[in-house]
Amino acid sequence: MLLPRWRQSLARSLHTERSKPESKFFQVASIALDEGTNKLTVENRTLVFRGFVDNSISLLAITDSRSDKYTQWLHEPQSEICWYFTETREQYRIKNSVTLIGQDVNDAMGTKASLRAQVWRSLSAKSKEQFLWPRPKQTVDEKPILVHHKASNIPETFVVLVFNPISVDYLNLTTIPQTRELHRISENTGMWVHSIVNP
Amino acid sequence: MLLPRWRQSLARSLHTERSKPESKFFQVASIALDEGTNKLTVENRTLVFRGFVDNSISLLAITDSRSDKYTQWLHEPQSEICWYFTETREQYRIKNSVTLIGQDVNDAMGTKASLRAQVWRSLSAKSKEQFLWPRPKQTVDEKPILVHHKASNIPETFVVLVFNPISVDYLNLTTIPQTRELHRISENTGMWVHSIVNP
Repeated sequence: MLLPRWRQSLARSLHTERSKPESKFFQVASIALDEGTNKLTVENRTLVFRGFVDNSISLLAITDSRSDKYTQWLHEPQSEICWYFTETREQYRIKNSVTLIGQDVNDAMGTKASLRAQVWRSLSAKSKEQFLWPRPKQTVDEKPILVHHKASNIPETFVVLVFNPISVDYLNLTTIPQTRELHRISENTGMWVHSIVNP
Repeated sequence: MLLPRWRQSLARSLHTERSKPESKFFQVASIALDEGTNKLTVENRTLVFRGFVDNSISLLAITDSRSDKYTQWLHEPQSEICWYFTETREQYRIKNSVTLIGQDVNDAMGTKASLRAQVWRSLSAKSKEQFLWPRPKQTVDEKPILVHHKASNIPETFVVLVFNPISVDYLNLTTIPQTRELHRISENTGMWVHSIVNP
């Protein structure tokens, strides 16, 4: 399958910056309902990129089922990734819809559970440990007790996030003037199309 | 004036990373109304930090009055900054309300216009030039023509953004377990208070 232009460009950016661990960090914004005030709020946090689903355009990350963002995305799956590469001076704004794959995922074919197991196996011991930490955002009042856990089991708190891109706003700051491309999926053909616009 | 704990910490992070230009970049998320679909969308983009207002807690950035974010913030000023420092491995999530200071700002005292002029003077020639570029997001169909402009005048497209913090979620990844602090303004005292919570 031929990957869309923005995705090829993203592969190049990742390759150029492969020696910098922080190039794998992106910021993800989403809309949440503040239960105290019953108003919409906007949330923005850094996540670690965990690769693409089967070399497709969908991006992987992980989270804890006890975190705010898990609940927020269950209710409102739309989000925008902002990914800035410091070396290549490129920014990708990726509008997407998030799919959550937790222990209780609806998964007749077993493909989601298999993806979840695959991502779990790829994690370092240190990353795995975080899913056994005490509940996020509760007051720290004692030394955290790590729950004893068989390494072969996947903790029920472990959730895989799949970001499914809908449109991409690409900016390259190295050219004069800067290069900006708007990418979207054509309603007619279902193919990715793009236009070059003023920055 | 004694600055709140998170702001002192942010000053330290900025000092430690002062040699890295990219440490001045943060991501700002906001909610917008998509005029095509009439639905809410979430927007996320990188901005350059331009300092604090008079050494206070309010953060400065700049934008173009012809950009989408200008119109979006006019309607919905709430936003969240996500600022990750790669060296110190600290993340600041700063919930805030944005104030826009453009040429037509309502400003009986003249303080806003004076801040706008001060930020304008601090910019490099290259940064200033961007405000004379063709309208953002329009199709590029010819070589951009730079409008001839007297250097002493501030272009009408130049807008200063002031981010006024409401609450801060601070995360430090260097400790085990990670350190997370929730900072907010107390309704009773109007002072910043914080609690230390599980990451």
